[in-house]
This record gives sequence, structure tokens and C-alpha cells, in this order.
Amino acid sequence: MRDLPLSKVYQLIEPGPVVLLTTGHDGARNVMTMSWHMVVDFNPPLIACIVSDRDHSFVALRATKECVIAIPSVELAAKVVAIGNCSGREVDKFATFRLTPKTDGRVSAPLIAECFANIECRVVDTRLVNKFGLFVLEGLKAWVDPLKKNPKTIHHQGFGRFVVDGDTIELASRMP
Amino acid sequence: MRDLPLSKVYQLIEPGPVVLLTTGHDGARNVMTMSWHMVVDFNPPLIACIVSDRDHSFVALRATKECVIAIPSVELAAKVVAIGNCSGREVDKFATFRLTPKTDGRVSAPLIAECFANIECRVVDTRLVNKFGLFVLEGLKAWVDPLKKNPKTIHHQGFGRFVVDGDTIELASRMP
Repeated sequence: MRDLPLSKVYQLIEPGPVVLLTTGHDGARNVMTMSWHMVVDFNPPLIACIVSDRDHSFVALRATKECVIAIPSVELAAKVVAIGNCSGREVDKFATFRLTPKTDGRVSAPLIAECFANIECRVVDTRLVNKFGLFVLEGLKAWVDPLKKNPKTIHHQGFGRFVVDGDTIELASRMP
Repeated sequence: MRDLPLSKVYQLIEPGPVVLLTTGHDGARNVMTMSWHMVVDFNPPLIACIVSDRDHSFVALRATKECVIAIPSVELAAKVVAIGNCSGREVDKFATFRLTPKTDGRVSAPLIAECFANIECRVVDTRLVNKFGLFVLEGLKAWVDPLKKNPKTIHHQGFGRFVVDGDTIELASRMP
């Protein structure tokens, strides 16, 4: 085995799919690109994610305790990267990237019509926010677009390199 | 958009790659299959993961505060599923699944020679363990096997269905 620098560990473990996280606060909405999230529990669905205090979305997420996780397929990859390379401090990202916000959900954050799935979430634990930017979310309502068939998600490997979903395999398993 | 049951949200968001988590405690070693993990910070690498108190590995992880995250490629998929479908309470999984433990690392948990990458970790935060089984780990040392070229990882979609890494795309990005 070869020695790998610790600074590259995140490229090994970085989860997928890359998602978008939206917030709505004080009449403004925003969206950020996020790769650092995981499932915490099945039902109700709990999801942990990292939103740094350097992210513009941090203040809105902490204040409203609400967000939407929107899942893009590979067709949106260029927009996903561009969204992650600018800040809501300077740009109205929904307008700039021609994303269609849907605000008829139950949370203050908009859904994104172009994504194949959207999960409306509320923050349920903030104990690790100050130290790690780690929010625990509960999924309140989830949506999928049945017109977007077999969406392929993307997984970040660092520095703009993404692996796209490939073949699917089925193995007998007792695990949900 | 179509209404999706909340019980299926985790299938949307479940991260990848599927990994193996090993522990060593009281002269016994164990390995579990894990899909619920995320990056928390770059350097030093921090990784959060969920190990339930129903998992046999829970006691060893909490007691030793050490583990190894070993990353298998698709060639090991059948073993990965089988490892996840039995318990270290009843089975010596290293023997049963012919995994080669390497114990010359700095932690009490063994590396797995058959995996293309291994990350030696210590537990650095346990505040969310009681409520969520959420451990925050620091990667202490990482290893890759240079003989395993272009490993394809697997991503669980629930019930034994896995997406295998497909094509790679490169997009100009300012993000690490």
C-alpha cells in the first residue's frame, strides 16, 4: 500500500450524490452546492449535513431552521458547479442560473423544479453546529419528478472531477 | 412532481461509497458494512458516521475510540453485502469472508488488505452518539493500494441495489 496525504482523505470518502441546498430568509432565497451529507436514520428520515459559517446559507439555515435538499441529475452538472463557485452574497443564484423556485412547500425554502427530487427539511439538532457546522435535519416532505426517468447523480472527487452513476447491480440483501 | 413516502427519503440521499468499518477490542476484531458517512472537514480529515447501538461494532468503537474505514471496489460487492447481513456476535467475519487483516497500523482496528483504500481513524466527538449513533472521526493515516487501478466504488440505493461508478467528467471548478 502507498502512503496517501491526509489532505486527500476527503476525496476518498466524499459522499454522493452532490446536492443543492436552498434556503429562504428575509425575503431572499439562496442555493448552495453540497457534497457533505449523510443519512442518520430511516423514518422519519434524518439527514446530517455540513454548512460552514463561511457559506452564505449558514445564517439563513440557522435562523429559519428550514431548508430544501434538491437533487440534480448529471444534465445539471455545469450549473451545479457554477452554483458552488459563487456566493449568494453577490449573486441571485436562482435568476443567474435560471432555476425555477417552487414556494408552495411547507418550509420557507424553495424547491427547485429542475431537480429530480426535493426534500423539505427542518433542523432538529444544532449541538455540533458551532464546532463543525454539522446540522441534523429531519425530512418533512419529499418530492420526485416522475418525468425525469432514471436520473444519474454525480459524486464529487475533488477539484471539479465527478463520477457519474454507472451500471446498477442487484444483490440479495436483508438490509433496507 | 409526485409525492414520495418519507420512508424512502434515505434512498435518495444515501451517500457513497459503501465502506467497511473495522474495530479491534479485547482481542477480537470485527467489520461492518456502512453507507452512512460524510466528510466534515478537509484537513485534518474529519468524517462523521452512524454506528447504531444495535451494531455489534458499537461497543468496540465507543470503548476503543478507534476504527478503520476500508473502501472496497465493486469486485468485493458480494462480500460487502454478506458482511452487512450477519453480525460479529455470531461470526468471525474476517475468517468467514477471507479478509486479510493488517494490524501494523497505529490503531487497534485492522486494515483490510483487499480494499483499495484504508483510513485509520480515532473518535474525536461523541456528543451525538447517544441520540443518533453519530460519531465524528479524525483520519490519522490513510493508505491506498497502487496496484488497484481506477477502483469503481458502489453506492447503495436500498435493498441490495447498488449503483456502480460510471464515467468521470471534469468541470472547471474552484472548489477542492
